[in-house]
Parts: sequence; structure tokens; C-alpha cells
Amino acid sequence: MKNNRRVGIWLIGAWGSVATTTAVGLAAMRQEQQSRVGLVTENGWFEKLNLDQPEAFVVGGHDIHQGCFVSTAQKLHQQAGMFSGNLLTENSEILAKWTENVCPGTVLNADAKIESLSEVQSTIQCATPAEAIEKIRADITAFRTTHQLDQVVVVNTASTEPPFPTHDHLKSLSQLRARLSEKSKEVLPTSSIYAFAAIEAGCPYVNFTPSLGSSCPAIEELAREKGIPLSGQDGKTGETLLKTVLAPMFAARNLKVLSWAGFNILGGGDGFVLNDPANKATKITSKDQVLSDILGYRPQSLVGIEYVESLSDWKTAWDHIHFEGFLGTRMMMQFTWQGCDSILAAPLVIDLARLALHAQRRQEVGPLTYLASFFKSPIGTKKQNFFEQLNELWQYSQTQPANS
Amino acid sequence: MKNNRRVGIWLIGAWGSVATTTAVGLAAMRQEQQSRVGLVTENGWFEKLNLDQPEAFVVGGHDIHQGCFVSTAQKLHQQAGMFSGNLLTENSEILAKWTENVCPGTVLNADAKIESLSEVQSTIQCATPAEAIEKIRADITAFRTTHQLDQVVVVNTASTEPPFPTHDHLKSLSQLRARLSEKSKEVLPTSSIYAFAAIEAGCPYVNFTPSLGSSCPAIEELAREKGIPLSGQDGKTGETLLKTVLAPMFAARNLKVLSWAGFNILGGGDGFVLNDPANKATKITSKDQVLSDILGYRPQSLVGIEYVESLSDWKTAWDHIHFEGFLGTRMMMQFTWQGCDSILAAPLVIDLARLALHAQRRQEVGPLTYLASFFKSPIGTKKQNFFEQLNELWQYSQTQPANS
Amino acid sequence: MKNNRRVGIWLIGAWGSVATTTAVGLAAMRQEQQSRVGLVTENGWFEKLNLDQPEAFVVGGHDIHQGCFVSTAQKLHQQAGMFSGNLLTENSEILAKWTENVCPGTVLNADAKIESLSEVQSTIQCATPAEAIEKIRADITAFRTTHQLDQVVVVNTASTEPPFPTHDHLKSLSQLRARLSEKSKEVLPTSSIYAFAAIEAGCPYVNFTPSLGSSCPAIEELAREKGIPLSGQDGKTGETLLKTVLAPMFAARNLKVLSWAGFNILGGGDGFVLNDPANKATKITSKDQVLSDILGYRPQSLVGIEYVESLSDWKTAWDHIHFEGFLGTRMMMQFTWQGCDSILAAPLVIDLARLALHAQRRQEVGPLTYLASFFKSPIGTKKQNFFEQLNELWQYSQTQPANS
Amino acid sequence: MKNNRRVGIWLIGAWGSVATTTAVGLAAMRQEQQSRVGLVTENGWFEKLNLDQPEAFVVGGHDIHQGCFVSTAQKLHQQAGMFSGNLLTENSEILAKWTENVCPGTVLNADAKIESLSEVQSTIQCATPAEAIEKIRADITAFRTTHQLDQVVVVNTASTEPPFPTHDHLKSLSQLRARLSEKSKEVLPTSSIYAFAAIEAGCPYVNFTPSLGSSCPAIEELAREKGIPLSGQDGKTGETLLKTVLAPMFAARNLKVLSWAGFNILGGGDGFVLNDPANKATKITSKDQVLSDILGYRPQSLVGIEYVESLSDWKTAWDHIHFEGFLGTRMMMQFTWQGCDSILAAPLVIDLARLALHAQRRQEVGPLTYLASFFKSPIGTKKQNFFEQLNELWQYSQTQPANS
Repeated sequence: MKNNRRVGIWLIGAWGSVATTTAVGLAAMRQEQQSRVGLVTENGWFEKLNLDQPEAFVVGGHDIHQGCFVSTAQKLHQQAGMFSGNLLTENSEILAKWTENVCPGTVLNADAKIESLSEVQSTIQCATPAEAIEKIRADITAFRTTHQLDQVVVVNTASTEPPFPTHDHLKSLSQLRARLSEKSKEVLPTSSIYAFAAIEAGCPYVNFTPSLGSSCPAIEELAREKGIPLSGQDGKTGETLLKTVLAPMFAARNLKVLSWAGFNILGGGDGFVLNDPANKATKITSKDQVLSDILGYRPQSLVGIEYVESLSDWKTAWDHIHFEGFLGTRMMMQFTWQGCDSILAAPLVIDLARLALHAQRRQEVGPLTYLASFFKSPIGTKKQNFFEQLNELWQYSQTQPANS
Repeated sequence: MKNNRRVGIWLIGAWGSVATTTAVGLAAMRQEQQSRVGLVTENGWFEKLNLDQPEAFVVGGHDIHQGCFVSTAQKLHQQAGMFSGNLLTENSEILAKWTENVCPGTVLNADAKIESLSEVQSTIQCATPAEAIEKIRADITAFRTTHQLDQVVVVNTASTEPPFPTHDHLKSLSQLRARLSEKSKEVLPTSSIYAFAAIEAGCPYVNFTPSLGSSCPAIEELAREKGIPLSGQDGKTGETLLKTVLAPMFAARNLKVLSWAGFNILGGGDGFVLNDPANKATKITSKDQVLSDILGYRPQSLVGIEYVESLSDWKTAWDHIHFEGFLGTRMMMQFTWQGCDSILAAPLVIDLARLALHAQRRQEVGPLTYLASFFKSPIGTKKQNFFEQLNELWQYSQTQPANS
Repeated sequence: MKNNRRVGIWLIGAWGSVATTTAVGLAAMRQEQQSRVGLVTENGWFEKLNLDQPEAFVVGGHDIHQGCFVSTAQKLHQQAGMFSGNLLTENSEILAKWTENVCPGTVLNADAKIESLSEVQSTIQCATPAEAIEKIRADITAFRTTHQLDQVVVVNTASTEPPFPTHDHLKSLSQLRARLSEKSKEVLPTSSIYAFAAIEAGCPYVNFTPSLGSSCPAIEELAREKGIPLSGQDGKTGETLLKTVLAPMFAARNLKVLSWAGFNILGGGDGFVLNDPANKATKITSKDQVLSDILGYRPQSLVGIEYVESLSDWKTAWDHIHFEGFLGTRMMMQFTWQGCDSILAAPLVIDLARLALHAQRRQEVGPLTYLASFFKSPIGTKKQNFFEQLNELWQYSQTQPANS
Repeated sequence: MKNNRRVGIWLIGAWGSVATTTAVGLAAMRQEQQSRVGLVTENGWFEKLNLDQPEAFVVGGHDIHQGCFVSTAQKLHQQAGMFSGNLLTENSEILAKWTENVCPGTVLNADAKIESLSEVQSTIQCATPAEAIEKIRADITAFRTTHQLDQVVVVNTASTEPPFPTHDHLKSLSQLRARLSEKSKEVLPTSSIYAFAAIEAGCPYVNFTPSLGSSCPAIEELAREKGIPLSGQDGKTGETLLKTVLAPMFAARNLKVLSWAGFNILGGGDGFVLNDPANKATKITSKDQVLSDILGYRPQSLVGIEYVESLSDWKTAWDHIHFEGFLGTRMMMQFTWQGCDSILAAPLVIDLARLALHAQRRQEVGPLTYLASFFKSPIGTKKQNFFEQLNELWQYSQTQPANS
């Protein structure tokens, strides 16, 4: 059952490889014969839900430097072998049109690493969070109006920020609002400025990164006030996915994990930003908490992430799991995962966009816990076991769909 | 809650490394301080069920050559580093007593490889299945009487047989009974002779191997007639366990598995017998069917097993999974699993013994499908997804226990 | 120092992926800016030798079915990601010209697997080895004349044949000649028919496969009679290369290799032919002998090769090396090698062509033992240690070059 | 040919696992039937040299806390499975005697991490390097006299120190001597205090660690003055060994290494000290320089070392090598090395002791460059290619031996 709705996806960090791959994928899937492999929402469970088809989507977004979907995609093709064949040629027209929908972003309250990636002519000049929020809200609203869209979903695919302290003023909306006109890096990180603006614009918000985004009581309160569904955070695409798949096996079989050491090497823009210790810290924290939640005890756990330029958008993870079995015998499992990061992430972005738009139509508000399987640090739930998470998603997929 | 029951475990292939490790483990766990790591029945789910405690068990069995639990265990200690510390010294007395409970077995209708491992003075001489069944039944019954046991469970831990054709006479009990006095290898393989005898002796039967055992309509009919619970077949300890853990992830994420190639190297007695192409065939078939059941399509699948003498009881599996993601991009996952086979298997044998005895007390009859997670080729169910299997086991663990 | 010579390379199995990659590479390197990475003869040692430059080469060959360099190369590009960028477009003209130099081949005395790949209109019809040799010799001679080439080198890059028995008539040239007019598969395998013809045509011969080729006393006698240099056999590109690199380390450090188990999975045409047990046997024998030659004792050694269609021209090898160190402690090394087979092989084909042509100009005759480092089963020497082989190659590279 | 000489090996850091394993090995090899696997000096090259037999050795040393060879060895046996069987029981008497030869050491000028491992009653109290040197020299001399030893070799097997700045006063012996009575951490690190004392005692000195030891012009000058041979530094046992074995293959084959990322996980005392960033820095520098020396260019290179307590004395290294082949195609090699660190190191310590004692008898003075293959950062040479290093060792082994 198809509907005639038109929807928008607004990508923060539009020239990043995840966002670009999302755009290329949405363009390509306007052709019915394009394979849907990689989309969870096409795994056969979701037929009853009235999800928006790929051709219903218009793409827009923010970024802080000059760019274009086609040239970024071509670079990914050359460096990482993505988008084989004629995919880019055939879709260059629509991608060029979508490029026009991308507006200058903000680096207000950004860290030095991310600020170093910005260009003056591609960033909006604003002195306070309040100003930035208003400008971003206006961009999103204009996009919805111009393209006559029924709904717009905002997805954070920008670079990972350093950890942001849990200041008191983030605990209630009134306190936060009281400080939005302050010129201080302490008020709100960039990712949360965007999240605030998305909610003000009436858009469901998906945080695909480990940055703060909407994950503080004040902004969740805003979402409830405005009736907005939230999801996040930090897309679960590779090593952490495997941890949440394998750890339940060790738990069920009563095998005692002694240590779990994982090393990730990756290139690309993501790797470049994560090479900064501050930004890396957010990521590692996000990856490291899952084991003890599943196992019920805390084995020694190491997570390393290193930038290896030659790998481009490919990530290789090596994990070494040392465990004890019957009568004290120690054994080992090791795995390597060689994945193309954006190729793994982009279909999940599309899945989440479809599901978040659907949730909004069903008037679901606040953290969508049934989306936990998509995230390394799911909001609104402690559930980390991938199969328990999947079970919840499956249950949801069998419920009554929203009207279109 | 402990009961005062006394139970027996009867191990077919008692001098094999799985059976010996089972005996060592049961001996060691008579001490409360011995860790229960590796036992599924000690993972926290089964507290409500009134399972028999390790100290309730007496061990006996059949084997076809001279042997002894202590010397086999010492050999495993020296060659494979199992049973560290003082475990063997402390338990040598009880193991010596249990050694006396092991009776000569049968090689009637066995293949040449297994026959070559037998010794004349350790095998019973009988011309027909009927004779062998009666002799085996009597051994088991005598064990129960002598030791004043409330129940005895029979577990097949003998070497893997070659595949046995599904002859017509295996389809009904009356047809099979009509041929039990024939001198012909075509009537019933050795493993099924033991299974038949176990059921005749009123014992629940666990087939921990891929051999035929009780897995034909005729013997299942016998089990129903006698009110006996059955479980099997082929304990899921390593590579196949991981297949049934990982394949559901690929399915849920809609990642298309293109090929799954797995190679296993192992030494020890199991490796030696599997080095024979006929015996290996049974094993490979058992390992190879799980993927298409979980994925819903049949990727190219390879399973290799090779005997590497220096590894002794250790098995290393290397699996290479080639899969397609979004927009046709191909990616890879590889894993290695370095496990000590008997150390992984023995606690499952004990789990299955406890659960099968419990099932008999609850008057459960025929294939116990909630035990599917323990087996590569679970009987009575098509369910191969480890987490669906676990879910069923968990549900069962929350039901009303049997009276003791 | 460049010379003005023009030379030819004649590829048996021209539409195979190794030969096609060789042609693409020679075409591409006519541009000086094309990288020379992968060519041993460009590693800095060979500056003194007056080797032929890539632009001196004209390509021709034989194959047994219809084909063309450009379309084969495009297929490799699509399936295996080879030849990135504009390489094929830029070189399609020269490749089309070279395609015209490829003549119908022979399947006389070929095995069923290889015969099944042939097409009637692309095979010459001849009843005896003598006829086939004459026809092939004439093709090669015509190529040399037409293109006014100073020299032509013949390289066997055809599919691997099954092992050929060492019949008595292969022991001397006179005996072999006496049987060349017999219609019998027992006289000479296809690869040796080509080798015989190449030598008759006055061309140095390189056997890049494990097939028999020139490797029998009778044909070596012919080579000496005609003053022809020979080299082979079976290009050492991946797993075996690593064996001959790593085994010397274990030997020097006096670490005792207990077992070395290697499994190779590969797709492509090579994988398809090797999937036949007969053809695979030749390959495995070729790969398996190197260890005991280097170590001085024979550890248990396993070599598996399996066809995995999805891998296309990529080969992944997993090797598990179990070794004993000081005081009986056992340790492990494992490696995986993920290589694109033709990309590894083709530059070695070009190296060998350059070196064999140079050898002919220096009047070297018979097996060129200083080329041992290029081969799994080097002819004329027992030396398998890669670094001893390299040392010999380096010594040779410092000698007086041939005149041009 | 055996000689009747008696020699001593003086181990700095005697209760460390490498030193203890060295002692256990020397004790065990007093039995001729004990395997010599792992000793380079028993690989068949050194028969002509008149090296001291294992039974000629008496063991002594320094350490900074209470300890004993037997109890340390038992701990290694229990935690890491080393010294299987009756090895320890049979040799406990001789090990107890050697334990009495171990004297309190010094932590003068040591870093906080190492100081934290020391005990007051096991450290000598001295205020200046001059005092410490004199005390250590006297201990070594007393050992030689008491046991009537012909020669004593001193080997540094203590924990790795942080990098020490190359102060000006380390550039000449006179400048260094002028400051030896200063109370300042800037004068000389602990490892160099020991090295100075060893040379003053007339002993050849082997630095098996990356600490400074004798590696400064001032102390090398002292060695020349006293006629003492030196060797070091940092035993090459695992990952770096493999780098110097594999990198020459990539170089010879003209394959371009794009990046080489290696991660090491290890437990044990070595892992514990290396867990400190300052101490780790010395190690990483030592491991990281070898690639560019062999390849002739500097690929991106990462070396990680992490402490994983459960691994005890076992180290697992995972290396990922990304390389470019012909026509720009990128390929990968990965390896894992699962080695028991002390078991790999101890036989090299014994090799170096034998060779250094032999060198002293031949009046060789200063850095012994033919020992480069034993070290990550060989002194006196830039040669890093393992096979070039081996070649030099082999040449040396064929020379005229020293008189006994």
C-alpha cells in the first residue's frame, strides 16, 4: 500500500559520507529495481506499517563548508570503491537539485577540531544559541514550505563532539531557556542547538551520533511540550553491533567473559575527527558500556579507535574475547569486521527517518525505545541485548499502523 | 531447594573425552566451591525448576575398549592442558569408583573405523540387534538397581557414525521389531541399538552426536509407547553455535549473505574419527543446514573439518562471511574460535541430563523441542535461530517444576 | 638506458584473468606516469640490466573460446573492482588491436573440465601432438614476423591441468619425438604441447602454472638443443609466498612447527577449474612441498582450496601455524591474506617475460634457477627459502647485462 | 666439543618472568634429554663455535623486592600454563640455590611506576650513581669469586623505563664521570647505573630491554676502555620480529605498504608496567622504527600496547597491513601472533649470554652488530631486515671460534 505523501529528510552534516550515502541511496531507490538490501525496514517485518516509500523523500540539510552531493559521492567512489557502476551518473540530476537544499550551518559552541573544518561563507554568524536556533528553525521550515512537504525529519549525521558536561541548566527547560541568550560555550553544544531547532520546527529528531543532541532532560521536556518523537543515539553499525549480538550468547551459555579488547581502524572524515582525543572519548564511552549491561558483570574491556588514512571510508575492527569455560579452562574468540561505514550507516538513517515520521503520525512523543536496536546508546531504555531489542522492534512492527 | 534423590548418568562412549570430562566435572562439583561456569542450567534462569544437583549423580556407561576415567583425564591434562591444578588428584577416588560402573559395549553394525578402535575383551558378543539391546538394557537396569537410583539418563557421547540410510523398516515400530533378530548391518546402526535399549530400560535418552540414535519414527514410537522423553542431536558447542547467533543478525539487518565458508581444525579422538570421510559426512551435513533455515535463502556454504594432531582436544574454527550491504557494496566478517571441545561439551551434557531427568519426572514424552538451543540438528523442531531457541528454553524455565 | 627493441609476449590462455591483466598492465604502462608498483623488476635492483621497457611489448596468444581483452577486463572491473578509474577507456584501442593477435588454441589431450570451457570455432582441429605443435609454432612465428619483433616470449597462463604421470617416453627427446604422431592422451598433455611448440619457435618459455609444461627431461633436452631458456613453475603470489617467507623465521629461531594448516577460498575462473578435484590435486601438491624443504623436517601440513563464487578474482587464505617453543610451550600464529589474484600475478608475468627475454639475449639455456623466488615449484633447484631465492636474484641483477 | 669452563649469568630483574624462565630453562637443560627447541644457538649453525653448555651456567642477579625462582615459576605455571609437567619439581633444588645468589637492587633514579614495585628491605640505599655503581659492581664480583666462575655475563631483563633525554653529559665518559656523584635524576637512569657497574666488573653486558642501559657514547667509551663487548637492545620476540620478516617481502616484491597498524594485548608484569604511558612510550618507539628502515619510505604506522590482565604472560598481537599492488589495487594482510612472552624471550637471553661470553673470550669490544637479529633496536647498526641480520649471524657462526 503506497501513500501519496511527500516528506523531507534534513541532514545535519550533509557533506559527510553518511549523509551523502543516504542521499545517493534515496536517489537510487526512486527506481523500483534498485535493491533494498541493508534496509531493516525492508526485512519483511514492516509490511503492515504504512512507511513512506523512498520516492516520497526530498533531501536537504546543513553543513559548515562548501560541498555538493555529487562530488562527495564521486570522491567516495574513487577512494573507497562505493557506488559501483552507473549509479552516480544516473542520479546526478536529482542529487544536484538536492544539493541546492543544503544551507550554511553553525559552529557556535563547537570544539576546535570541528571548527577547523568550517568555512566562513558556509557558516551562519550568530552570537547566541537563541539566534542560531531561530535561524536553523527557519531554514527547516522554509524547506518544508518550499517543497510542500507533509513532514520533515531531522537527522544528526555531523561529526562527533567532545563529551559535554551535564550542567544543571540542562535539567529543566525553563532553566535552559533562561540561558539561551548567553554568549558562552557552557550553555549548549552545537548538536543540541540543532536538536532544539528541529523540535521547534515540529520535526522528529534522530541523533545518529554520540554527541549530546536532544539527550538532556531540558530538551526532552521541549519534545514532550511540542509532541515530538526522539530517537538516538549513535548508530550501531559494526563492532558494537557484534558485541550486542555475541555477548548474549556468552551470557546464556554461562561462559564467563574475562576480557574483551577491541581495536578499530578507519579512515575517512569520521576517522579524521575521531583522531582527536576529545572527540574520540565520546565515541569510546558510547561503545564501552554495552557489555556489563548484557553480562551482568564488568569484564575488562578495551576499545581503541585509530585513524588509518589509507582505509578511507572502510573500517576494520578486531576484537579479542577471552573467556572462561567449564572447570576453569580459558578459551578465545576473535573476529574481524571489514565494513564500509557509510554503506552500513546510510540505510539505518533511512530506516530511522521512515520510522520516526511514522511515529510522529501516530502521535508518539519522546524517546522511541523500540528503536534501541539501531543505537549504541539507546535513549529511554537500558536494553542492550540485540535480540531483546529486535524483539521489541518486531512487536512494534505488528501493531496498528498510523494513518497516512 | 535441594532434593534427596539419587540419579545416574549412563555415558555411551565413556572413555571418550566428552564423557570423561563430564565425569570429572560431576566429581569436582560435589564440592560446592567448584565454579559452575559453563553450565547453562546455572545461568540464573532455572532456580524455580527442581533440577538434580551435581552431587546427586552416579556415573556409569559403556565403552568398547579398556579404559579408566583417571588415566583418560590425565592424558587430556598433559596433551590439552585441561583440568588445571589439583582437580584430578582430589577426585581420583570417586573417578576410580565410577570406572567400575563402565561395561563392555557393542560394535554390532558399526563401521570399520569405529570397529578398529574396539578390543575383543571390551565388547559384548552378540549376533543380532535383539541380543545386543537386551544385554545393554540389562547393564543399565543393573546399574540403577545396584546404586539404588531413582532415575538414570542415557547420553550418547560415542564417535560419530557414517550416515545411515532411511530404510522403510525404520518408519514404524512394528516393522523394526520384526527385523531385530536379523543378522544384517542394514537393520539398525549401533547408536540406535543403544537408544532402543535405553528406552526399553525406561531411561530418558540424549543424543549428543549426529549419529542416528533415536531419530527415526520407529524408535520415537517406542519412546511414546514407553513414556520416554528424547533429546538431540549433535551438541552445538562452537562454530555452529556462532552461525546460529550471527546469521539472525544478518537477517534482521537485511544484509545479504553471499557465502559462508568455515574451516575447522581439531585433534583428539573426535578429530581422528572425523578424519574418515564417511564419518565426516554425517557431521558436515549436521553443520551445514542451519544457515538457510535462518536466512530464508541459501547462500553458498562450505564446511571443512580437518584432523590436526598437534591440537589435541582443541578446535580452531575460521569462518569467512561475505555479505552484500546497501547499494551493492560487499563486505566481510571473519572469526576464529579457539575452544577446547570437551570443555565446551561436557557442561551441556550435564545440563541435558538434568533437564531430561526433570522432563521424565514431569511425564514429558518424545522430542523435547525446548532443548533446541543445545543442538546442531534439534529434533522435533525446525527452529535454528539461537535466540528464538533460547526464548523457548527461557519460557520453559519459568513453568511449574516437576515434583521431586 | 632504453633500447629500441620490439618484443612480443605470447599468452597461452589469453582470455584468462592473469593474461588479461597482463595485457591491461602493459597497455597502461606505455604511459610513463603509470605506477610500476608490483613489478619486481622495478624494485631498484635491476637498473644495470638492459631489460625491455613496457612500451616495447606487443601482446598475442592462444585461447580456446571467443573472447576479447576489453570485455574480460570490464568483467573483472565490475565483479572484482579491478582497474579503477579510466584505465580501460584510455587503453581500449591498443587492447582491441592486441585482441586481434589471439589465435584459436588446442584442447588436444586436455581433461574434461578444460575441454568443457572450449568452443569449436576457437579450437584448432588436429589429431596428434605433432600436428598441434606445428600449428602453434606457426602461429607464434607469424606473430613475430608480422609485428617485426626481435624476440617473443611464451608464457603459460592457462588453467591448471590434472597431474600427468611421468611416463618413460618423457625421459628423452628421441623417445618423445617417436610418439608425437600417436593419437593418445598418454603422449603429452596440452600444456607440454604448447611448451614444445614455443621452443620449436625459438621462444623462451615461462610456465606460470603447475601444469607439466616444459618440466620433463625430454622437453628440457629440446630446450638445450635449441638454446632456449626455461622458467617455472606455478607463480608464487600469496599463501605459498608467505610460507616461504615465514618458515625460514621459524627455522632460524629454532621454533618447531607442529602443524601448518592453510585454507584458500577464491572465485573467478581459476577457482572454477580448481574446484575439480583432479585439477586441484596438481595445485595442492605444488603448494605443499615447500615446508619440509625449508624446515628440514615434515610437520603436519594441510592445504585446502575451495571455490567461493562471490569472491570473484579475490582470494582469501587463512593459515594456522601451531608451533612449539622453549620448554615445550605451544603457541600459534595465524594470518589471512586477502589478495586479488590476477593483480598479484600479472606483474610477475611481466617480470618473468622481461627476464626470460634478457636471458635469451645472454644465451642462457635451460632452467633459470635465479628465478626461483617467482615460483611455488621452481625448476632446476630445490631452494624454497624466499630470502635465499631473493639473494640469488639480487646477485644476478648485479651481473653484466646482455647487449640489446 | 665441551669445555670445562664455569660461567655465570647475572640477571637484573631476577624475579621477572623472563629472568625466571631463563633460570628454569638453564636448570632444566642440565639434563641432556631436555629439548633445545627455541634456542637459536642450537639451530645447527653454531657447532663450530665453542659456546658454553647450559650446565656450565650458575645464575645470580639483582631484584628490588623479595622473591624466589620457584614461587615465581609456580605462579607462571598456574596463571599461564608454562612449565608443564614435572619440570619445577625436578629442578626446585637448584633453583632454590640460585635464589640465594640474588641481591637487593637499586631504584636510584627510577621512575615512580618501577619504584612502586620495590620493597625497602630489598633495595640498597645509596645517594648517588657512584655509590650504586660501586655496590652493584661489588655484588657481581663477589658472585664470580664465590662460585669460582671463569666469566660472568650481565643481562638487563628489568622493567622498561621511560625514555631518558640525551643529555650532553652522556656524550663522553669524562663528562659523565664528573657527574656521577651528583644527587640528581638527570645524571643517569637506573638501567645505565647497572650497565656501568657491569662493565666496571669486567662483564659483557646484554640489554634485553628498550631502556637506555649502555646505549650512550659515554658508556660505550667505558666499554672500549675496559675491553667489554656490548649487545642490545630490546629482545625481538614477536610482533616486531614478524615486521622485520614480512616487510622485506613487500619491499622485494615492490608492493607498496600504505599502512601497518599493530595492536598488542598482554598481561603479566611486563604488561602492567607498560600500562603506564611513560614506560609504554619507550617500547613503542622501539617497535615503530623498523618499517621505514626496511621499506625505504615511511608508511603510516601504528603500534598499540594494552594491558589485559586475564592474558597473564601471553601476548596476542594483531597486525593489519594495507598495501597497494599493480595498477593501484589495494589488498590486505592480517596476522595474529599468540605467544608466551617469557617462553619466547628466555632462550634468546641464553643465546645472547653464550654469544656474549664467547665474544669476550675472542676479545671483541663494543657493540656486537652480528647480534642484530635478536633485537628490535640493534646497537651499532641500522640493519633491520631480519634476513640480512641472519645472514650476518650465519657468517659469524662460520668463523674461527674463541679458545676455551
